[in-house]
Amino acid sequence: MSTVRQVLSTLDRDAVGRSMMDLAAEVYPIPRSLTGDGVRATLERIGRRIPLETHELPTGTPVLDWTVPREWNPREAWIRDPSGRRVVDFADHGLHLVGYSVPVHCRLPLSDLRPRLHSLPEQPDLIPYRTSYYEETWGFCLAHQLLESLPDGEYEVFIDASLEDGSMTWGECLLPGSTTEEVVISSHVCHPQLANDNLSGIAVAVHLAEALAAVPERRYSYRFLFAPGGIGAIAWLARNRDRLDTFRHGLIAANLGDAGSFHYKKSRRGDAEIDRAVVAGLAELGEELVTEDFFPFGYDERQYCSPGFDLPVGVLTRTPWSQYPEYHTSGDDLSFVRADALAGSLAAYLATAAVLEEARGSGAPAPRLATAGGDRKGAVHGGPDARSAPAGSRRTAGDRRYRNLEPFGEPQLGRRGLYGGLGGAGRKDREIAMLWVLNQSDGENSLLDIAESSGTPVDVVAEAADALREAGLLEEVE
Amino acid sequence: MSTVRQVLSTLDRDAVGRSMMDLAAEVYPIPRSLTGDGVRATLERIGRRIPLETHELPTGTPVLDWTVPREWNPREAWIRDPSGRRVVDFADHGLHLVGYSVPVHCRLPLSDLRPRLHSLPEQPDLIPYRTSYYEETWGFCLAHQLLESLPDGEYEVFIDASLEDGSMTWGECLLPGSTTEEVVISSHVCHPQLANDNLSGIAVAVHLAEALAAVPERRYSYRFLFAPGGIGAIAWLARNRDRLDTFRHGLIAANLGDAGSFHYKKSRRGDAEIDRAVVAGLAELGEELVTEDFFPFGYDERQYCSPGFDLPVGVLTRTPWSQYPEYHTSGDDLSFVRADALAGSLAAYLATAAVLEEARGSGAPAPRLATAGGDRKGAVHGGPDARSAPAGSRRTAGDRRYRNLEPFGEPQLGRRGLYGGLGGAGRKDREIAMLWVLNQSDGENSLLDIAESSGTPVDVVAEAADALREAGLLEEVE
Amino acid sequence: MSTVRQVLSTLDRDAVGRSMMDLAAEVYPIPRSLTGDGVRATLERIGRRIPLETHELPTGTPVLDWTVPREWNPREAWIRDPSGRRVVDFADHGLHLVGYSVPVHCRLPLSDLRPRLHSLPEQPDLIPYRTSYYEETWGFCLAHQLLESLPDGEYEVFIDASLEDGSMTWGECLLPGSTTEEVVISSHVCHPQLANDNLSGIAVAVHLAEALAAVPERRYSYRFLFAPGGIGAIAWLARNRDRLDTFRHGLIAANLGDAGSFHYKKSRRGDAEIDRAVVAGLAELGEELVTEDFFPFGYDERQYCSPGFDLPVGVLTRTPWSQYPEYHTSGDDLSFVRADALAGSLAAYLATAAVLEEARGSGAPAPRLATAGGDRKGAVHGGPDARSAPAGSRRTAGDRRYRNLEPFGEPQLGRRGLYGGLGGAGRKDREIAMLWVLNQSDGENSLLDIAESSGTPVDVVAEAADALREAGLLEEVE
Repeated sequence: MSTVRQVLSTLDRDAVGRSMMDLAAEVYPIPRSLTGDGVRATLERIGRRIPLETHELPTGTPVLDWTVPREWNPREAWIRDPSGRRVVDFADHGLHLVGYSVPVHCRLPLSDLRPRLHSLPEQPDLIPYRTSYYEETWGFCLAHQLLESLPDGEYEVFIDASLEDGSMTWGECLLPGSTTEEVVISSHVCHPQLANDNLSGIAVAVHLAEALAAVPERRYSYRFLFAPGGIGAIAWLARNRDRLDTFRHGLIAANLGDAGSFHYKKSRRGDAEIDRAVVAGLAELGEELVTEDFFPFGYDERQYCSPGFDLPVGVLTRTPWSQYPEYHTSGDDLSFVRADALAGSLAAYLATAAVLEEARGSGAPAPRLATAGGDRKGAVHGGPDARSAPAGSRRTAGDRRYRNLEPFGEPQLGRRGLYGGLGGAGRKDREIAMLWVLNQSDGENSLLDIAESSGTPVDVVAEAADALREAGLLEEVE
Repeated sequence: MSTVRQVLSTLDRDAVGRSMMDLAAEVYPIPRSLTGDGVRATLERIGRRIPLETHELPTGTPVLDWTVPREWNPREAWIRDPSGRRVVDFADHGLHLVGYSVPVHCRLPLSDLRPRLHSLPEQPDLIPYRTSYYEETWGFCLAHQLLESLPDGEYEVFIDASLEDGSMTWGECLLPGSTTEEVVISSHVCHPQLANDNLSGIAVAVHLAEALAAVPERRYSYRFLFAPGGIGAIAWLARNRDRLDTFRHGLIAANLGDAGSFHYKKSRRGDAEIDRAVVAGLAELGEELVTEDFFPFGYDERQYCSPGFDLPVGVLTRTPWSQYPEYHTSGDDLSFVRADALAGSLAAYLATAAVLEEARGSGAPAPRLATAGGDRKGAVHGGPDARSAPAGSRRTAGDRRYRNLEPFGEPQLGRRGLYGGLGGAGRKDREIAMLWVLNQSDGENSLLDIAESSGTPVDVVAEAADALREAGLLEEVE
Repeated sequence: MSTVRQVLSTLDRDAVGRSMMDLAAEVYPIPRSLTGDGVRATLERIGRRIPLETHELPTGTPVLDWTVPREWNPREAWIRDPSGRRVVDFADHGLHLVGYSVPVHCRLPLSDLRPRLHSLPEQPDLIPYRTSYYEETWGFCLAHQLLESLPDGEYEVFIDASLEDGSMTWGECLLPGSTTEEVVISSHVCHPQLANDNLSGIAVAVHLAEALAAVPERRYSYRFLFAPGGIGAIAWLARNRDRLDTFRHGLIAANLGDAGSFHYKKSRRGDAEIDRAVVAGLAELGEELVTEDFFPFGYDERQYCSPGFDLPVGVLTRTPWSQYPEYHTSGDDLSFVRADALAGSLAAYLATAAVLEEARGSGAPAPRLATAGGDRKGAVHGGPDARSAPAGSRRTAGDRRYRNLEPFGEPQLGRRGLYGGLGGAGRKDREIAMLWVLNQSDGENSLLDIAESSGTPVDVVAEAADALREAGLLEEVE
């Protein structure tokens, strides 16, 4: 396969859908949390499929305004009712234990236990997902109908878990391209036994890496991050702030296996190239897409798009978080995600990558961003450790711009062999695309601009530009 | 009461509505015109309720392109029909006499009198309102059905009025704030026996002044102008042009007692802070609001928004002038205005002031406008007396801007005590508002900007910003 | 007639419609093509009505990226069926012969002839229009039902035509105005026996020239081009590139005789004065108008609006090319165009010219465009012969801008005689227009800007501005 678009056009959605379901099923039972062996086991399974480099940072390490937390490893946790029956058992479902619960072993009446028990009265047969990362406590989650049936009396509670100094772990897969400019795909790996949020994101990212690895002529490098939500992205940003000048485009992958249509939450900039590439890519696939402006909560876009970084990162999902009833409950299990939906989501990510690749072109390298030491204009004042801030340049895009070298009147395409003889429909589209590229290439309009103003797919515009450049009619600018 | 919003939230609409109706009824019978004892008597009644400073300028004083006119004081005016019956009498209704009519006493046949009689054929039972300020003439206004019933024959006409050198009078009430930056509320006081236009405006302005006087921590100074329309605003601008650098926001109050919903005519600038504050304030009240772009006729916005001044002044009314059938007729009487409408209008003005106060904040003073001697860029060339023109700066707003001091990633709110424990709905809104303020505070976006882009009330945004500033996470810019 | 608007308001649409139909009928039978005697004969007929200067360029002359082609003159062409009957004869209809067909005389079976025969299966009774300018070949066009009825057997084909070195011909009519700034109206003259495309354009252009010639006080010069499509415009641009600095506004006239409503394709700039003037002019006529953004194919706008020239040229038609079924078929004959439609189209062009004239005013000359040697900023880099490129200035418009000399408050119009006494409706509109002009004339807003923001016809705004300037209240800027 020589281009991303070719990979996309020959994608076997049935086969890849099955493979994604397999991966999800394989890692579903692993008890994940912000830190600990569950994350390590998950990364180990990912590493069997794509090249993965694992990073660990010790508890207490300062990262931006935060500190790496203690490592949590649950082993056993249950509640026995007055008759001695285990009515709630972490071995049955990973959501039963509140994340980061401290060890406990005690007996107490139901009335005292009750405040430690979390349920969903309006979804009485589902177990909710709860964590308490930053407050030291313990608790259990269970179905409301079970909670309602518990008899009064004395209960025995047992939690065997370690919460102690250790490490936080994340994984990175880097696929080098012909430039060091990076497209970053970020998935969180901290949710236990929840399929759509977030195993679907992991499955799409892993299979996207596999698909892109088959493209020999990648114009961008692709970096896949598998990190715990929040603190993982914070740690990665803290460790990588000196090299963010190669960060070109980013997407956060989650909620990609449900039956809903696509949803895109734009980057904070709102008009970044990634924001336009997602729209173009999904339109070329014929997929319905709802877009939404940035807001400063949700997934790790809240870190990437904080004003000091202001990176061009959007969130491409199917149904967004909290907008499906199974969100953050035991209803988000393996039966909730679908192979065809996962495969379609992979296609959506590939189509976006194809647009980025085509708009980037293979010509001159895109301008390097000013590094922190150089151009500080636009960067916000950020106290002592603001030194390595990337400049907030809006022109980070690789999107190509050309200048028409025969701009006075329309150049003769026929004598340059650029007009076909009889020509099918495809030929005609390409000729019209050449007219658009020639007319708009005044050094200001980029290929994405031309695709948008002409209503032409980016690959057709890019192919027309390539043909015109080879004929000596265009030169790339900057 | 410590803030404008608290005054608003505890407003007793029934009581204040009655008080506004009382004021309207008290001044309704006074024969007002551009100049004369009617204006003085009206200002005297206003001065019984709020501190009022009265200004007089003698006839013939040049003011901008105009001259203060002669003073007019009508005393008696009537028409007797051929049978000797007084068929029209100024003592019965102040609209019967054309404003600025000169004295006359004569007998004349109906055919000669007819051109001096003004009526409304399409509203045959209403008396129209007519004036002739700048052409020396006389005339009467009457119901068309009365006009039609007049028998032929000789009529006696009598007008006893003085039109001679004197003064033009206006009043000002200044409520000083913690800064000298001013919000100016302007009402005209020249309309005789018309309730919605303009007693409703006077009533709202007077009660707004009373309400704001109860706020000890006003961030703005508030100036209330009660002046004759046109020449009054012209005189005030001529006399105050050296100190317009403290003029921050202005509203013209009129047509505020009818049953219609709210209407806002924007300032000439169209995007001044006052234009946005009215929209935000009315939205927070849940009031329907129609906005309209500026046009250069109407009330005194034609003076304030002339291109040499270009002050940020809009017009907040209920049904706009000329769009209700009773406008400028005897149908606009005390029964046409309603206590609940007046009270609702006062709430609309208070809500707008609350937004201005909250966006202004109590921090550093807003930048002073360049005075005329300093920065002349943007000021138009205005001939010999353009010397004291204010610069046409767009950044006149007090609207606060902050810079996030921890802009790289999301700062930990929990360890600063900014996240609550369990938290009610209000608490959650405040936390989301903090995320918005942190994310958007790059020194460019103001609190009003953030309120608009987040869809959050200004007071919630302002409170979040105050909390973040106290926690050391924000600093004010400029 | 002293102004364009007066010519428009007294236009006798019946008479001018008949004259336009006469002209169309007169030139309809002439066999036109890119070059040759058909073009010359057409220009000769135009020259009987308006002063026309004819230009010829010899075959082989380089023009921009192109070369003047050989001259083609068809004399006789027919096909005999096996029975010897002339089934297709160029003498019957000018569309029967493919344009630029080379001479041939041969016998051949139907199966060999078939690929040379062009028809429209979906419009079986119409003859299509085909040319082959840049590939040496021959062919015939005929109704599909005739084609279907042809018996097998041997056919005799005869084409007597010369294709040899000669010249390409075009005509220009220049009506000098009080300035050398030009409005250019361009019609193609290369279509044989097609009435709407393009005799309607020729008829409108000729009668527009006649009408404008009757205006003694033209503020612009008007240039009418009658040139073959594509290569004609290319040649004119190549020959005139040194004087394009006087090119102010351009329109391409075609498809103006059908029953459809108006359609305007904007210039590449999209917001050029011509784009706004067409909208204003048609609105003043009360004509429905659909506007469309520029795209880089169609008529000669593809040359004028190539990025090196980027001239402000739009296309004002009724139904656009290819959007009526008779387009480029024998159905586009004299019965397809209507006298009333042609007359209405002339009115549309006159209304646009009236707006341009009024907005231009008679005051100071508009700023000259920087010539190529002066300001090269914005011009694209165009290789060796880019030397004489016009600068791509957006401020090419003649549209007047004024500065209010009494900008502080509203000037007294009454004492300057600018307010009428009682005043009819027209008077009131003019007074409101004066308020708009005074309020908006800060040196930035032009008369077209004011007309658009006030919703007032341009002539009313222009008249108000003239009155205010004469009263000393305005001065023109730049």
